[in-house]
Amino acid sequence: MTKSVSIFGATGSVGQSTLDLVRQHPEQYKIVALTANGNASQLAALAREFSAEIAVVADDNAYEELKLQLEGTSTEAASGKEALIAAASRGVDWTMAAIVGCAGLPPTLAALRCGKTVALANKEALVSAGALMITEARKAGATLLPVDSEHNAIFQALQGGKIDQVRKITLTASGGPFRTWTREQMAGVTPEQAVAHPNWDMGAKISVDSATMMNKGLELIEAHHLFPVGLENIEILVHPQSVIHSMVEYHDRSTLAQLGSPDMRIPIASALAWPERMMTNCAPLDLAEIGRLDFERPDEDRFPATKIARAAITAGGAKPAMLNAANEVAVAAFLNRAVQFLDITEIVTRLLDSYSPPEPSVLADIFAIDKETRVRTEQLVEEFKV
Amino acid sequence: MTKSVSIFGATGSVGQSTLDLVRQHPEQYKIVALTANGNASQLAALAREFSAEIAVVADDNAYEELKLQLEGTSTEAASGKEALIAAASRGVDWTMAAIVGCAGLPPTLAALRCGKTVALANKEALVSAGALMITEARKAGATLLPVDSEHNAIFQALQGGKIDQVRKITLTASGGPFRTWTREQMAGVTPEQAVAHPNWDMGAKISVDSATMMNKGLELIEAHHLFPVGLENIEILVHPQSVIHSMVEYHDRSTLAQLGSPDMRIPIASALAWPERMMTNCAPLDLAEIGRLDFERPDEDRFPATKIARAAITAGGAKPAMLNAANEVAVAAFLNRAVQFLDITEIVTRLLDSYSPPEPSVLADIFAIDKETRVRTEQLVEEFKV
Repeated sequence: MTKSVSIFGATGSVGQSTLDLVRQHPEQYKIVALTANGNASQLAALAREFSAEIAVVADDNAYEELKLQLEGTSTEAASGKEALIAAASRGVDWTMAAIVGCAGLPPTLAALRCGKTVALANKEALVSAGALMITEARKAGATLLPVDSEHNAIFQALQGGKIDQVRKITLTASGGPFRTWTREQMAGVTPEQAVAHPNWDMGAKISVDSATMMNKGLELIEAHHLFPVGLENIEILVHPQSVIHSMVEYHDRSTLAQLGSPDMRIPIASALAWPERMMTNCAPLDLAEIGRLDFERPDEDRFPATKIARAAITAGGAKPAMLNAANEVAVAAFLNRAVQFLDITEIVTRLLDSYSPPEPSVLADIFAIDKETRVRTEQLVEEFKV
Repeated sequence: MTKSVSIFGATGSVGQSTLDLVRQHPEQYKIVALTANGNASQLAALAREFSAEIAVVADDNAYEELKLQLEGTSTEAASGKEALIAAASRGVDWTMAAIVGCAGLPPTLAALRCGKTVALANKEALVSAGALMITEARKAGATLLPVDSEHNAIFQALQGGKIDQVRKITLTASGGPFRTWTREQMAGVTPEQAVAHPNWDMGAKISVDSATMMNKGLELIEAHHLFPVGLENIEILVHPQSVIHSMVEYHDRSTLAQLGSPDMRIPIASALAWPERMMTNCAPLDLAEIGRLDFERPDEDRFPATKIARAAITAGGAKPAMLNAANEVAVAAFLNRAVQFLDITEIVTRLLDSYSPPEPSVLADIFAIDKETRVRTEQLVEEFKV
């Protein structure tokens, strides 16, 4: 049985990791749609390699190049937002939603509405539009598979029981590069220091989120939507080696955990083959070699991001979308040396307290909140400028 | 839906833990048979408390006392080996097989033949009679649930996939109290030192097995029968804190692990409620409090027991039963100060090499091997006497 697969964000790291896994088992997967933002030549090469039915670039300016590069193949070329949604509506067995940012929301929603399986790597889908996505997924009978290593770990650990048998979910956190630093020491952190993540090779934005622990705040929001056990039953545990990716404790006090090497292909493989499992060439885990795993409680005085995220979840409505947008702007300002490291969470907090738009009920509301928050955060950044 | 339950070895620690869990959910379980070796008054008290249908003492000499103590109740009293087998043949939904030693084999086999669920705490059933038990269980369509913390952990981790998707099973081992000792240091170990186990409060025999790491050898034999992934795919990992009870690595390189506090009721609860999960008042796991987990490869030069066990599995036939019996005699001799600590594995090795009875095909063969091995090991002990 081949599985029909579409990958939204095929040229990004998650998309490429997914295709690398498909490459290892070509007979089991049939690629339908591949999409990219604007990298037509890379997308065309992938479409040729996997004989995709359709390749879509979000950027209309890249369309001519894509069409040219696909000449002589059976792959259809398309571009633009509507083409992305149309491609996501083809109803394949398995969709990877890995477009970065709010641009990923419409095709993700379209894929969910087909009622099939959607692997979720787009953070905004749950952070900014969680209630909407979960409602639509339920309505359509779609299956949401998280590919973030933490949420994927929880999903796997939940195979050992049922969600209503869960006592506690533990999201592990590396603690970032400043785990042992005081607030005073963190005040002078440079972008270079913040981007040097201890365990994973990541982009600059995500590395800064890891350094502020806002990544864990965002993951808390995602976990809250994916695993309805009650916010008070989701805890964060600092675990510098990031070997245990997360844990589920059941009512009988058995805890199930998923562990693995820091390779994004491992959770992606689990989602791609689900409910089966596939052979991969990822690095096996060697705990004797690693030797030691450490654990400590998070310190929300030094790292307030998770506290901010909890408050945003509790407040609900537009707040999580605002948190996400404000954080992006604040991190960008920090990376541009416009504000200081500790200003990031301070700016997010100030923004969240500054206005309260009505609860979003459609995607357009989310986009409006996102846009307004960005403008307002830019203004806030001015006040914080060094 | 109440589950009908029988407990063989109700007055032992596993039996009492099981009843403690039943006590927490009286409406969900109906106790049918409770058995003990010779403690009639304790058994009668339990039978009264749980309104058991039948109470059986293995020792005929305890029958009159049992009958007396059960007067005026609806609980039937019985005694002897045949009564144990008859009680085990009642076909309840769930049987706890927790009788210690080879005496537990006939009722365990009888329970398996009913084709229902048998929770296995009797080590001999798999170590000495593994092939027989597994064959009979399969024939009858019975479900075997391991309650040993390691095997129960593997069973739970296997809920996340299928046995043919397993790349490796890792049995964790505390390493015992002499984990960091040299052979020279271990030469002078006293029974008092060997019995002081770091993590679990156990009987003397099991504590010595933990100190020699023969417990892990025995568990390796059990795992080999329970989880047919090939002996070469079952590894042992020393993990002094015994928090991760064991692990399963799948082909996609995801590892699932079960963790918990050192409380036998946790794995028993998982088996008792399976495939559901029950509320328990066992201690939750607090990894931040524990702080640190360590891992190292086992050193089979200092601790040859697991190597001996692997060889016994590979040789097959009577060897695992011989290993078990020889080890029991050698450990008893050590506890009686008749032989030294390092003699234990040496005696077992010598015994295994000394004779090769034909492969056992019925329980009587196992009993004969067990008996002859004990006699021969006693003779060997004489040679080693200090």
